Amino acid sequence: MRFFSDNAAPAHPKVIEAIAASNRIDSAYDGDEWSNRLDAAFSDLFETDVRALWVTTGTAANCLALAALCPPYGAILCHRDAHIEVDEAGAPGFFTDGAKLMLLDGRGAKIAPADVAEACDRVRKDVHQVQPAAISITNATEYGLIYRAAEVAAVGELAKQRELALHMDGARLANALATTGESPADVTWRAGVDALSFGFVKNGGLNAEALILFRTELADEIAVRRKRAGHLLSKGRVLAAQILAMLDGNLWLTNARSANAAAQALAQAAPGRLVYPVEANEIFLNVTTDEASALRAQGFDFYDWGPGEIRLVTSWDQQGEAVDRLAAAIRDL
Amino acid sequence: MRFFSDNAAPAHPKVIEAIAASNRIDSAYDGDEWSNRLDAAFSDLFETDVRALWVTTGTAANCLALAALCPPYGAILCHRDAHIEVDEAGAPGFFTDGAKLMLLDGRGAKIAPADVAEACDRVRKDVHQVQPAAISITNATEYGLIYRAAEVAAVGELAKQRELALHMDGARLANALATTGESPADVTWRAGVDALSFGFVKNGGLNAEALILFRTELADEIAVRRKRAGHLLSKGRVLAAQILAMLDGNLWLTNARSANAAAQALAQAAPGRLVYPVEANEIFLNVTTDEASALRAQGFDFYDWGPGEIRLVTSWDQQGEAVDRLAAAIRDL
Amino acid sequence: MRFFSDNAAPAHPKVIEAIAASNRIDSAYDGDEWSNRLDAAFSDLFETDVRALWVTTGTAANCLALAALCPPYGAILCHRDAHIEVDEAGAPGFFTDGAKLMLLDGRGAKIAPADVAEACDRVRKDVHQVQPAAISITNATEYGLIYRAAEVAAVGELAKQRELALHMDGARLANALATTGESPADVTWRAGVDALSFGFVKNGGLNAEALILFRTELADEIAVRRKRAGHLLSKGRVLAAQILAMLDGNLWLTNARSANAAAQALAQAAPGRLVYPVEANEIFLNVTTDEASALRAQGFDFYDWGPGEIRLVTSWDQQGEAVDRLAAAIRDL
Amino acid sequence: MRFFSDNAAPAHPKVIEAIAASNRIDSAYDGDEWSNRLDAAFSDLFETDVRALWVTTGTAANCLALAALCPPYGAILCHRDAHIEVDEAGAPGFFTDGAKLMLLDGRGAKIAPADVAEACDRVRKDVHQVQPAAISITNATEYGLIYRAAEVAAVGELAKQRELALHMDGARLANALATTGESPADVTWRAGVDALSFGFVKNGGLNAEALILFRTELADEIAVRRKRAGHLLSKGRVLAAQILAMLDGNLWLTNARSANAAAQALAQAAPGRLVYPVEANEIFLNVTTDEASALRAQGFDFYDWGPGEIRLVTSWDQQGEAVDRLAAAIRDL
Repeated sequence: MRFFSDNAAPAHPKVIEAIAASNRIDSAYDGDEWSNRLDAAFSDLFETDVRALWVTTGTAANCLALAALCPPYGAILCHRDAHIEVDEAGAPGFFTDGAKLMLLDGRGAKIAPADVAEACDRVRKDVHQVQPAAISITNATEYGLIYRAAEVAAVGELAKQRELALHMDGARLANALATTGESPADVTWRAGVDALSFGFVKNGGLNAEALILFRTELADEIAVRRKRAGHLLSKGRVLAAQILAMLDGNLWLTNARSANAAAQALAQAAPGRLVYPVEANEIFLNVTTDEASALRAQGFDFYDWGPGEIRLVTSWDQQGEAVDRLAAAIRDL
Repeated sequence: MRFFSDNAAPAHPKVIEAIAASNRIDSAYDGDEWSNRLDAAFSDLFETDVRALWVTTGTAANCLALAALCPPYGAILCHRDAHIEVDEAGAPGFFTDGAKLMLLDGRGAKIAPADVAEACDRVRKDVHQVQPAAISITNATEYGLIYRAAEVAAVGELAKQRELALHMDGARLANALATTGESPADVTWRAGVDALSFGFVKNGGLNAEALILFRTELADEIAVRRKRAGHLLSKGRVLAAQILAMLDGNLWLTNARSANAAAQALAQAAPGRLVYPVEANEIFLNVTTDEASALRAQGFDFYDWGPGEIRLVTSWDQQGEAVDRLAAAIRDL
Repeated sequence: MRFFSDNAAPAHPKVIEAIAASNRIDSAYDGDEWSNRLDAAFSDLFETDVRALWVTTGTAANCLALAALCPPYGAILCHRDAHIEVDEAGAPGFFTDGAKLMLLDGRGAKIAPADVAEACDRVRKDVHQVQPAAISITNATEYGLIYRAAEVAAVGELAKQRELALHMDGARLANALATTGESPADVTWRAGVDALSFGFVKNGGLNAEALILFRTELADEIAVRRKRAGHLLSKGRVLAAQILAMLDGNLWLTNARSANAAAQALAQAAPGRLVYPVEANEIFLNVTTDEASALRAQGFDFYDWGPGEIRLVTSWDQQGEAVDRLAAAIRDL
Repeated sequence: MRFFSDNAAPAHPKVIEAIAASNRIDSAYDGDEWSNRLDAAFSDLFETDVRALWVTTGTAANCLALAALCPPYGAILCHRDAHIEVDEAGAPGFFTDGAKLMLLDGRGAKIAPADVAEACDRVRKDVHQVQPAAISITNATEYGLIYRAAEVAAVGELAKQRELALHMDGARLANALATTGESPADVTWRAGVDALSFGFVKNGGLNAEALILFRTELADEIAVRRKRAGHLLSKGRVLAAQILAMLDGNLWLTNARSANAAAQALAQAAPGRLVYPVEANEIFLNVTTDEASALRAQGFDFYDWGPGEIRLVTSWDQQGEAVDRLAAAIRDL
């Protein structure tokens, strides 16, 4: 039973159906009827005019956004454990043509406005030092913590004061919103977010993510950069159709609630072992090497996350028996 | 009836089936069982050990290969009408970090060894001029012409003499091989090709192309570059499964034969109007503006290709009535 | 006697004196008194507020300007024989992070507005093709021809219509102005030039060129790019002092007149052999291989420029005997 | 009296003389007699065959070397306070096309082999994380500490084990060697250094630094990169001549000894205030804000270096009265 990553889960059946249904001739690239519906669909969801571009990976969404928000000679402030720093093979450096990630600390991969401010203040305002140009936050974070709307707004306020752009890596934004019940608008553009990588692949999608531009004037440039990075698929309709299927009837929210519920079930089985509060679909537990081995011996797969620590991730499709069995196994340690 | 582009055609039903069938949990990225079968499947097809990486677009396949074959300060020799020059939004410059395309002439987008040699000879061997590092040819070309194995070998021989790498953009290699009946091996590595972008999307695939490395030592670097370019999909199994479905029972060849047969049917309807001999699935016709309008009035869609010239492209799924009607309409002009 | 290149000539004694005179402690980088005088000095010369930055090479001046004027995904229109295309080792691709040079034809390396317009018109307005963003012209051209103010203005007018930036490579602008007597203002910003590489090194300077920004808002970005490219010398005063020495009493104009006079002397010796009219300090002559050998046997050095053609370049310090002897030798061929 | 930076000091009179003496016609770029003598001169100094290229800044030397030693998708391990990280405006990212600096801690900007090893061990060996490719150390460090030959060798040994290239930023290598009396060979290639930025500008040079390649096969590539970065000056003889003047009679060592002696004089005036031992020509002192003001009121200029700390840097030309007066002023605080 895999608790490695929500990445590895299957796509939701409705997504597969949508792919099959869109498999007919239409205009190539993003000229088809599905792609043409994205702007409106996301504008509805976010209660404001947005531009929405499909891409196949979160890395592409993040880095296309950052390339438009930060010049090659600028810096992007992010957490030391941010996905863009740790798990994208240097993609931000590639897409931005050499911009720098300026790393911040913060519990559970969350960054605080005060830390951003301090990092900015450390930089001399001269040509010798790389000047900050953007902030990127991940919501939910790489450790499953959530920025609530007010917290994002505090970062957004600082970004505005310092004339920094604000990007949100929302690979698990669905899980965050499923927990807080806040509106997509409140936690993004109303809080100062300029661009959002809205993740679907970890949440029941197959291979389509959405890059949402609240500063709509960025979209044309990013569309060019998307093509230039080899990310303009010729049958893009199949990506748009997936996303529309995920939006339809708020499937994205339903799926995220399932994953979160599974995470809560596991968290409740191990209250004394939690490294972080469980706010989305990731659970970090303190377990000994022997305990980890014992879990694996029962057929559970997961990541070791540093000494004495493991990571469990639940998916939209995990419920019932597998979760119950793992919860029981954890209780029995 | 669309004769715009093979890009826009639907995927083959077996490809959609393969996607659905691979929609179950497995290792993320390219650690799954389908991805793991690619090297062997293509090694069989090419009768030698190769490494094969899936990507979602031909642009990504081409440019990842070129980035590994040409340093940032080198030049890639290609035809003036090559896709990498004309239709990839400068992606080669992006992926290679600034390498230069050195443009050659040649009828029907084919380049001749003598022209390559001459272009090389024009470059002074000093640090002031960009030195050629690679050649890229497209087979079938952007005008539907074919390099036969002996022709590729002549380019390959020159590449070897000049210490240039050789890349083949095989977005329509299937159509070329369907016509010539030559073996995949003969037209590629036996002829000196180092890396091949093997296209499936124009030929019944949905969103998976294969990058084949005959110089297998390049694969690890390219795998890193693929991730760094945001092209490592988390559910990569769905790409591998598509490709395997295309290879299964030589579906790729069957599909290409269908498209080529349709093209021949159209060519035979217009022997006096052909700009180029029809060797694959593209037909360029001399027609007046009025004639083009007349065809469009009958419901046929296609590209205008310069004054007095139109481009028709046939797809794997086009046969029977639509083709017959267009052939008749052309005859009636 | 060297007629290879004005590059190789010695610096003017006043430049060497200025270097020695500036060799005392002052603020590092460009904070010194000499650097601080550049903006005013060039604003005087150009009769408008400009920003002026020293760099050590024309390549750096050209490419820093182009990097600010053209995005990585844009194209720069220039002549096929432009220095930026032919002799800068791909530096434009490096500094712009991958922008493309779009090459134009034109007699004597001059480009005509109609050719620029045609090149722009050939580009489809979509994301697949690289869109033009800037024009770069060289004055005097690589073949020693001159753009007069009205000619630049015609290019500038087109640039404005097409929303293209306009850069002038003025490695030999001094020679152009020495011939025409036009004002620096008329041939640059009044004609629509946004940024000028103003050359001194070929004209009596040692290792200082000036990058002049008529769009002054570009200067801060370019100052950052200059540092990032390793071009911010710590004892920059020595570059500023050289440039000020060249401006003092219009030494730059005096030097250029000397070089041009020498060129005219040679041109008058070979009226029937001139490949181009001699408008600055470069002379291209039709000579046979035997004739070229005969000249070399008398001690004259110069470039072969294609079959049956040689290039002579005169310098600020070439006058009197050497030129007379070469003129006589040419007459005697 | 300026104790801001050795950067700002004048050049040594012999350097100015060498510039004047080389101011005659010769081959352009690096084809002249002075440039041609560099390889031999440095091969003598380093007791092995080396290739030596002039450049005008330490940033260019460092980053050209790093571009050859680290691929765009690799990482360079360096200290958190290294010049390449803190004071080069992101130049490493520009020259390497996006490589990452991986930052290490260590007292006084020195890095220890164990820290390098630990940093490497933290990186998963997969395509998601940027893999280390090179180490860069600064000798003397940004805080004036010295790596002795044995210490470099320990880093070099680790580099070899981990298959990492080793670069030394020797902006103040002269000061280091003046202190230790070790041989240039022992502290560089015999200790595993692949490429050295050998600084002259802070030590009596005007605007010439040397990039020394112990792996001589790198030189041709770097020569191309130098041109491509706009760093191939057309009258390069003036840079080579400066460097040769610095090597002549070991002027570089004499100058460094002077600067170091001045630093020792200051250090001895403030034994209780030293933040770091004074090993080269930089002195970091604990002083209160009032004390710093008192020094400035007496005409001494220097940097504030964080709260309660100042930096003094001595130069080759500082001796006698100014140093004595500052030493006295420090004693009197």
